[in-house]
Amino acid sequence: MQPDTPFSCQPIGRIHSCFREKFGIPRQPGLAPDAQALLELLPPYDRAEALSGLEGFSHVWVIFVFHQALRGQWRPTVRPPRLGGSRRMGVFATRAPFRPNPIGLSVCALEGVEQRAGRPWLRLGGVDLLDGTPVLDVKPYLPYTDALPEARSGYAPAAPAAALSVVFSARAEAACARAEGQHPGLRRLVTQVLAADPRPAWQGEKASRRHFGMRLWDYDVQWTLEDGVVRVTDLLTLATD
Amino acid sequence: MQPDTPFSCQPIGRIHSCFREKFGIPRQPGLAPDAQALLELLPPYDRAEALSGLEGFSHVWVIFVFHQALRGQWRPTVRPPRLGGSRRMGVFATRAPFRPNPIGLSVCALEGVEQRAGRPWLRLGGVDLLDGTPVLDVKPYLPYTDALPEARSGYAPAAPAAALSVVFSARAEAACARAEGQHPGLRRLVTQVLAADPRPAWQGEKASRRHFGMRLWDYDVQWTLEDGVVRVTDLLTLATD
Repeated sequence: MQPDTPFSCQPIGRIHSCFREKFGIPRQPGLAPDAQALLELLPPYDRAEALSGLEGFSHVWVIFVFHQALRGQWRPTVRPPRLGGSRRMGVFATRAPFRPNPIGLSVCALEGVEQRAGRPWLRLGGVDLLDGTPVLDVKPYLPYTDALPEARSGYAPAAPAAALSVVFSARAEAACARAEGQHPGLRRLVTQVLAADPRPAWQGEKASRRHFGMRLWDYDVQWTLEDGVVRVTDLLTLATD
Repeated sequence: MQPDTPFSCQPIGRIHSCFREKFGIPRQPGLAPDAQALLELLPPYDRAEALSGLEGFSHVWVIFVFHQALRGQWRPTVRPPRLGGSRRMGVFATRAPFRPNPIGLSVCALEGVEQRAGRPWLRLGGVDLLDGTPVLDVKPYLPYTDALPEARSGYAPAAPAAALSVVFSARAEAACARAEGQHPGLRRLVTQVLAADPRPAWQGEKASRRHFGMRLWDYDVQWTLEDGVVRVTDLLTLATD
């Protein structure tokens, strides 16, 4: 293969995630530990032997396609949310989804390997993956080579502060309680996601909007924001696709 | 994009590395800190702005194609060298190059960003990358999300022990001294690479062979192995391609 030859490959799997739309997805994995996803291996890769030994690892790398960030034109610079959306950085100095090749890289907790409907599935935790994401590869996380806690990291030296406190209305509390059977821990997940301030980084929009909604599993989570406090007003059940 | 649609992309760059053949490449990045490579951005991605801000990071992820591991047939299990080459593991539980999509992932030290011949280049250290490797993406290493030193890692809990001691013959010492101008630290690099025991993991071959050669830059490094001691017998200068 010559370096300038196009590279083509076939997704080995597909993500089923609590994040049904881009809005609200944590900006890196691990920021919402209760965010769960299933990785379904697709034929011809749906062979249980291909995962043999993986259960000994606590974390895996998921290499995936930012399938909702495909567009014809690439730009050499982007505006990372970490810098308030106002400063431009080189696209290769960011983890932005809009990049020359829309390939994503996330480390996820591996919570289980199971068989369902005759196929092997991985249960993943702490995900930042959109529902329907095509997966190109899964690799075990090897701390001896992958963990560099002392690495220097420019403009993103630490996790974004979870700046917002989150309160629930009585309606929202009741909706979380009703959801407990199907989605245990939904209230905790909503809290983690909203505390991380999923609003767009553009200051203009931040200043003007007060009411927000995001889809989580099959719920439309509605909230308001005032004086740095998120108030979850309701969780509406959406019709399942 | 549907999850089962083939994904096609264009390499953004190409690796120029001290490793001119697969034999001898460290099994993970960082094991030979003096192993250096240059990443050349290819048109139309050879724009200096695309790297703006990257100089603030000490490490980068390189996502690349195992271009010498392309083959038609995939196998669900492989024999990792860590297990002596005798036990099979699921391919997704290993970092083996022969995998459904031959995509590699390496964290490399970022030693510099420079302009050469009108193009931006990255100087990388501690590489395990073959010369000519097509690069699909570069991302900054973010310790707050990527560094999980406590992760549990199955059959590969620690770096492979650098079991072998390395000595140089007078001829080999002299050849390293002559190379010092063009390849400073070549002796140290040879030592790091050979101490990690680059021999194939298959016991049969290990037992029967005593003389080895590997290409490093434009040298044929020749060595023998006896009683756990590597003796570098010579470095022959090869004709440059």
